[in-house]
Amino acid sequence: MTLTDTRELVHEVMREAQAELIAGFEAVEREGALHAGLAPGRFGAASWERPGGGGGSARVLTEGAVFERAGVNVSAVNGAEVPPSIYQEQPATRGQAYFATGVSMVLHPRNPYVPAFHANLRYFEAGETRWFGGGMDLTPNYGFAEDARHFHSTLKDYVERHAVVDYPTVKAWCDHYFYLPHRKEMRGIGGIFFDQLSPASSDDFERVLAFVREGAATIRAAYLPLVRRRFATAYGERERQWQLYRRGRYVEFNLVYDRGTRFGLQTDGNSEAILMSLPPLARWEFQYTPEPGSPEAEMARFLVPHDWAG
Amino acid sequence: MTLTDTRELVHEVMREAQAELIAGFEAVEREGALHAGLAPGRFGAASWERPGGGGGSARVLTEGAVFERAGVNVSAVNGAEVPPSIYQEQPATRGQAYFATGVSMVLHPRNPYVPAFHANLRYFEAGETRWFGGGMDLTPNYGFAEDARHFHSTLKDYVERHAVVDYPTVKAWCDHYFYLPHRKEMRGIGGIFFDQLSPASSDDFERVLAFVREGAATIRAAYLPLVRRRFATAYGERERQWQLYRRGRYVEFNLVYDRGTRFGLQTDGNSEAILMSLPPLARWEFQYTPEPGSPEAEMARFLVPHDWAG
Repeated sequence: MTLTDTRELVHEVMREAQAELIAGFEAVEREGALHAGLAPGRFGAASWERPGGGGGSARVLTEGAVFERAGVNVSAVNGAEVPPSIYQEQPATRGQAYFATGVSMVLHPRNPYVPAFHANLRYFEAGETRWFGGGMDLTPNYGFAEDARHFHSTLKDYVERHAVVDYPTVKAWCDHYFYLPHRKEMRGIGGIFFDQLSPASSDDFERVLAFVREGAATIRAAYLPLVRRRFATAYGERERQWQLYRRGRYVEFNLVYDRGTRFGLQTDGNSEAILMSLPPLARWEFQYTPEPGSPEAEMARFLVPHDWAG
Repeated sequence: MTLTDTRELVHEVMREAQAELIAGFEAVEREGALHAGLAPGRFGAASWERPGGGGGSARVLTEGAVFERAGVNVSAVNGAEVPPSIYQEQPATRGQAYFATGVSMVLHPRNPYVPAFHANLRYFEAGETRWFGGGMDLTPNYGFAEDARHFHSTLKDYVERHAVVDYPTVKAWCDHYFYLPHRKEMRGIGGIFFDQLSPASSDDFERVLAFVREGAATIRAAYLPLVRRRFATAYGERERQWQLYRRGRYVEFNLVYDRGTRFGLQTDGNSEAILMSLPPLARWEFQYTPEPGSPEAEMARFLVPHDWAG
């Protein structure tokens, strides 16, 4: 395959993942809307071009019955010079031209008992270097051990079936990545995270691509059962306020630490598409501490690394 | 004066500014509460110590009649090694021990017609280098030319009276500093910003300190008349939603770009005191554009540099 063929092939895998995931999210949105007697939300479509090269498709659902906001974006961009967020991690790429394509998604549910979810799958070329990356992680507001076990076991099965990456490594990487040093807590309960996965041969490329391709089905299997389990749980103002407060931490992580966000802002990406990851509404309260023993206080036990898949 | 005397003197100036400003903010809060028939908010007091050395006093008012949240913090911290946010600006300070003291404040009013306000006054020592910095800037949600003129004229008079810094320079510096490149707009309508103001002699030190000392009175004169002018203006859900949306930009600026915030997070500062600058509630909406010709759309004209002081 030529370089251009490879790029087009990977971009197509990302577009297929986007379509498959939107179908899954819209299905659960319809179920929730039916239950609530509301009209279901739909994903709108907005495409954008990047002045420096490339563009993307941002598909966003707002004010749905299940999802307060959900976005699934695909982009493919190229540039003359690798930005700092990349060469700081991989110094050899400094000064190189680059190509990047990926799919990323963030779901902010309305019901505080339904966890927020984030995932992305990405491919990068800089000079002679090419690599894949990806990750999937869950951010609940309330701790349910059975949800955590389901989520992490599904990811573990997926990773072990492909044997392209090592499960304990990508699990620990996720725990490490989604961490807020200034809060001394994880953003959520983790999942998997991998990066700089460079195929050594064309056979190896096929194996890695197959792994990435199955990401979309895995996301559906890992996340959607939790949405279905919790979307009808009754809640009140207390749970809503806690959800908005926890979303504040989500904003802090994404704007202060997240490499994808910083990469996007540094490369003059589409700010609306990049910041679609931010929640529709978030709250900050000075020196707030949940009442000891409350379900909100219990959440702290979930925000530290734990071997949920057993 | 010994080094320690100087530090103590400057720290005391910061503490006096804090007390004077809180008195001013509580006075206008009482007026607003009287007008609304509510109990006025009061500034609580919380002090904190930094494990690495130093500490501070965070004084925060929440859920007031006029101020949805207001915070006025003083801190004095020292450390063995200057953090990246400082040595990236001043390479000569790299590896040096440092001392820093300052007062900073952020006011998020309840009424969308009352502008948010931010200011800080700061002093820094790193090795042989010592300098002052400071700034005051206004972030309205709606554009009122008379408010902008009053605010900027008050700052201009103050700066010109002392002749310690050059007004056009510190005005332009503020326009440049409070800018969101990814949004291609200013955070608000600017004000003044200065940094690395290093006194050349002890006479010079006295002059600079006198300038900094008058900062608190200037803040009161520049900002409080605008609060009094607008706190009783009637508003509805539309104005509230716009205020929350504009606050999202405020969050983006502070977490992505603000040097003080990044310095605080990098130096293991008190995260509650640092992030007190974030609004109590903020909103994001995908690809939102105000209706052309509306007061919300008109705001864009105010978010570019303008010579308000004439």
